[in-house]
Amino acid sequence: HSVTSRPRAWSLQKCKAVLLPPAIKASGLKLQFCTNETQATREKFVKKLQGLGFDISVAEVTAPAPAACRLLKERGLRPHLLVHDDLVPEFADIDKTNPNCVVIGDAAENFSYANLNEAFRVLIGLEKPVLISLGKGRYYKETDGLKLDVGAYMKALEYACDVEAEVVGKPAKAFFESALAEMGVPPEQAIMIGDDIVSDVGGAQQCGMRAVQVRTGKYRPSDENHPQVKPDAYVNNLAEAVDTILSQM
Amino acid sequence: HSVTSRPRAWSLQKCKAVLLPPAIKASGLKLQFCTNETQATREKFVKKLQGLGFDISVAEVTAPAPAACRLLKERGLRPHLLVHDDLVPEFADIDKTNPNCVVIGDAAENFSYANLNEAFRVLIGLEKPVLISLGKGRYYKETDGLKLDVGAYMKALEYACDVEAEVVGKPAKAFFESALAEMGVPPEQAIMIGDDIVSDVGGAQQCGMRAVQVRTGKYRPSDENHPQVKPDAYVNNLAEAVDTILSQM
Repeated sequence: HSVTSRPRAWSLQKCKAVLLPPAIKASGLKLQFCTNETQATREKFVKKLQGLGFDISVAEVTAPAPAACRLLKERGLRPHLLVHDDLVPEFADIDKTNPNCVVIGDAAENFSYANLNEAFRVLIGLEKPVLISLGKGRYYKETDGLKLDVGAYMKALEYACDVEAEVVGKPAKAFFESALAEMGVPPEQAIMIGDDIVSDVGGAQQCGMRAVQVRTGKYRPSDENHPQVKPDAYVNNLAEAVDTILSQM
Repeated sequence: HSVTSRPRAWSLQKCKAVLLPPAIKASGLKLQFCTNETQATREKFVKKLQGLGFDISVAEVTAPAPAACRLLKERGLRPHLLVHDDLVPEFADIDKTNPNCVVIGDAAENFSYANLNEAFRVLIGLEKPVLISLGKGRYYKETDGLKLDVGAYMKALEYACDVEAEVVGKPAKAFFESALAEMGVPPEQAIMIGDDIVSDVGGAQQCGMRAVQVRTGKYRPSDENHPQVKPDAYVNNLAEAVDTILSQM
């Protein structure tokens, strides 16, 4: 068995964050964190989690940017980047001269009118436009309010260039498969724990995994009537998810 | 008979601009300019055309902003505006307190990260989000290069809020009907002349008008193989369109 979990570190309550990994690790289950975080490198992300008390290493994190780098190398793609400044080091090894594709992440303040027009011009200027998006989230909440997420800007570029983006990140099937490969575990032996009904639960199930939705974070009661996605189980929080899984081993 | 035409003033060669209206006006045909221009008020737009030698009045221009104002008043909608600064005066008579909808135009530099998040927050905060878009163009060309048009940002907000925008402007049927109403002419007696295969030709035909595509401006040879839209005729330029129409009267 193994458990993949996706805590959005910035919003996790500390007690749960510290609670989860020791119980799982002591059980012998493998653990992989699947995040769509694209506002920082995995190194930075892991440091933050460690600071919150997590026993976690970079290798235990599956994130869109490294997945995109693999894809870029495999296909000989040279990206024009429209991403957060703090994510740029993740692409250090990638040839970015004379771009033949655009990679878009949650660029936050970098989603300026000028930067969007520039990314658009690169894309529309290609004979066969390739747009790679690090996730397709609609929006997220920060302390100063709701913000448009990468998915919205992805849709803008898709429409303007009449292309369909390749999504690297949840809920893309390849992204979950990559997390499973990193653990060396087949999907039917893995359980996803997440708060997002579509990205976490739907994505994992589409890949053959079971998926548990926590009733914290992004969860809304209306999720339980979702027209397409039905979790294998609900739990009230991460600690309960761990208890439930361990009790059934 | 009547003729509706859509010159994008900023890009029209002067000789044709001056040529067209006298020939039409002398013929007794009615003339209505259908523009998706939303970077200036109709007043400013008409002044610019007059400066280029056009014999044209504000009443002869059908534009998205006044059409949107009619719609807002009819439905008691109070807009949050995400438009170009120069378009704001067009909404002077409209109650903008406590917004219950968002109106988006080609805001150009006003398409900042902060302004997009603000429009998004208004929209997602409404019980029943209403998004009104002054056109759905994908992009346009300016002297310093290609720019994303209002349609791209409309798609971003549509996706983020899971709504469908109401488009006021070409190719919306209601927009052409409004132009016809202003002339007092039924669609079968009107001819549209335009350079955009979808917005001009397709929109007008959908409304029951005939439509001629000029092989200037936005026209591309690939338009002649468009999978959905087939113009009633092609002409090499506006002058030829006028000659052809007058010779068949």
